[in-house]
Amino acid sequence: MENFNYSIPTKIYFGKGQIKNLGNAIKEYGSKVLIVYGGGSIKKIGLYNQITEILNNNNLSYVELSGIDPNPRIESVREGIKICRDNDVEVVLAVGGGSTIDCAKVIAAGVNYQGDAWDIVLNSSKITKALPIITILTLAATGSEMDPYAVISDMSKNEKLGTGHDKMKPKVSILDPEYTYSVPKNQTAAGTADIMSHIFESYFNNTKGAFIQDRTAEGLLRTCIKYGKIAVDCPNDYEARANLMWTSSLAINGLISYGTKGEWSVHPMEHELSAFYDITHGVGLAILTPHWMRYVLSDKTVDKFVEYGVNVWNIDKNLDKYEIANKAIDKTSEFFKELEIPSTLREVGIGEEHLVEMSKKAVNGGLKNAFKHLTSEDVFNIYKLAL
Amino acid sequence: MENFNYSIPTKIYFGKGQIKNLGNAIKEYGSKVLIVYGGGSIKKIGLYNQITEILNNNNLSYVELSGIDPNPRIESVREGIKICRDNDVEVVLAVGGGSTIDCAKVIAAGVNYQGDAWDIVLNSSKITKALPIITILTLAATGSEMDPYAVISDMSKNEKLGTGHDKMKPKVSILDPEYTYSVPKNQTAAGTADIMSHIFESYFNNTKGAFIQDRTAEGLLRTCIKYGKIAVDCPNDYEARANLMWTSSLAINGLISYGTKGEWSVHPMEHELSAFYDITHGVGLAILTPHWMRYVLSDKTVDKFVEYGVNVWNIDKNLDKYEIANKAIDKTSEFFKELEIPSTLREVGIGEEHLVEMSKKAVNGGLKNAFKHLTSEDVFNIYKLAL
Repeated sequence: MENFNYSIPTKIYFGKGQIKNLGNAIKEYGSKVLIVYGGGSIKKIGLYNQITEILNNNNLSYVELSGIDPNPRIESVREGIKICRDNDVEVVLAVGGGSTIDCAKVIAAGVNYQGDAWDIVLNSSKITKALPIITILTLAATGSEMDPYAVISDMSKNEKLGTGHDKMKPKVSILDPEYTYSVPKNQTAAGTADIMSHIFESYFNNTKGAFIQDRTAEGLLRTCIKYGKIAVDCPNDYEARANLMWTSSLAINGLISYGTKGEWSVHPMEHELSAFYDITHGVGLAILTPHWMRYVLSDKTVDKFVEYGVNVWNIDKNLDKYEIANKAIDKTSEFFKELEIPSTLREVGIGEEHLVEMSKKAVNGGLKNAFKHLTSEDVFNIYKLAL
Repeated sequence: MENFNYSIPTKIYFGKGQIKNLGNAIKEYGSKVLIVYGGGSIKKIGLYNQITEILNNNNLSYVELSGIDPNPRIESVREGIKICRDNDVEVVLAVGGGSTIDCAKVIAAGVNYQGDAWDIVLNSSKITKALPIITILTLAATGSEMDPYAVISDMSKNEKLGTGHDKMKPKVSILDPEYTYSVPKNQTAAGTADIMSHIFESYFNNTKGAFIQDRTAEGLLRTCIKYGKIAVDCPNDYEARANLMWTSSLAINGLISYGTKGEWSVHPMEHELSAFYDITHGVGLAILTPHWMRYVLSDKTVDKFVEYGVNVWNIDKNLDKYEIANKAIDKTSEFFKELEIPSTLREVGIGEEHLVEMSKKAVNGGLKNAFKHLTSEDVFNIYKLAL
């Protein structure tokens, strides 16, 4: 196990009706609020009205930034920063899924940064402080509600980049699984794939002796497998929505990565797909993951795939190692198909035209310390397999 | 899954050499320190000298309270409070295992309480504030390093009672597994049983649909089972000590209990044993646990024992339910024997003399909402089985 400095300070109000805590949560940090949200879904489910009523009843003033895109744009961030500065905003309230929360985080950090906001996406060490961030989650997927990360796109440059800073960890997040009842089937499926990918990115590492982290990760994966399909088929199943929602937070808040070392593999590859084609992040991850697994399977990595197969998919541990590993990868791929997620890049409109360029960009940030070191040629091969 | 308000604010510095963070951690909260510790073990391993050197180098002044007993006494708490008041102490630094940390917590909370400290043991709602608490852990067992609880004894009344308050959650805990290398075999074994008991107390509940909590708890149990014996046999095995240490914290910091509902069963029964006979807490838990399991096994509870048997002990899921359950309980009992923990009350000097009295006291705090509602007669029966 590696040394680690654990700090997961976000307070979570989890469950039905927890919005009742919103007023007091905000008042701890200020009285002028920026509400950040996406399309009209929070209005459709009545959440928007509920929030503004709470703000009014608590004498909290607010301004708004709506229309945050699924791959949130740097333009929205810039706009949000301007609104905050013009209105002396003290608290940023994100209402939505990961895209909205990510956008809100960089707005909160950008208000106190003098240069252009894209700088702090490129280099998070330029962040020195951030407005307090409170979130109300409406989609179980990115885990942004309890982590320090944000992913922002500049589509004019085909760039989608992650940034992260402790100051961007939300102070409070309200997780009411009922808010996810109205999430469409395809988004529920993609969200589940995203959660699983976060777990995979931590789980498939080369750290020895991080047993407790591995077993915890396997428990989270089993939760996604048990409830992903149920949530797709029965959108109003509270138990499924609740388990997925809490798993989304625990998958990436540090719990399973503290004590391990490594770099993510599939996310950097997927970010290029989204940056060039604006596809749904979770769909890209689900398409790439089984191919990445098969590609990195080797004598050096097979034991980890055996653990995965036996502990997550209940595959007979007495089988041959490679048989277990391959069965586990098959199961992964079949599971994504059961969720009715596209399984090839061509299905989502991606052809060979940008593969070389995307491969080169994907390894820009590293991939050297990943579970298996990947070169741009490796990434190209994986993209090709996924076509 | 039940609603919950998650807050686990303790910062953890985990791993080799993390004591380097001590100076800065203290300085965030003050400059006058009370060091609380037990016997001489922290001097033997050189930790005491290391700490005082760090305090001196950082211009932090300190006073001391040593000699904290394994079942910490209210008299030590009172003494600590007096020292704090006389010296305007600003930070309480606990160096040791759970007993020392528990004692330090109630000292920190008692400084600002005007009445006698036993009041806040009896009624934690009387706690309004507490001095900041920093801990350096030297024994993996109680999880006190990351939770709000403390257990204090008044031996003059044969009383050992738990109290708990958010204000008593440590601000920072330093967890260096190497500090546990010198823990004797029997204490390592008892500590492992204590950790497992905390997990059992959460895991065996009647909440439906807390799937993620259950799978996480099982992962923690498997960690104890894998590493308990290794740590007993090879005290300097870093991997074993690290996994046990981190499990001790996660077992009771809320991670596996948030979202579930219930009351603890075996701890209240054990507290009476310790209060009357001053035995090692973890030993009492290990003796009682298998008997409690067997006693509460019924058509209503068998399914949970099946989950436990299959997921923790890898028992064939195709066997008869009761066969799985009984095998799982056997395995539990065998495991504690492998750790060379006594398996009967008589072995630790407990006879029939106080059983009735202890049974009555054990149910004082409740046991009504436990996994199975236990009356004083039930507790008496379990004690009898454990003789």
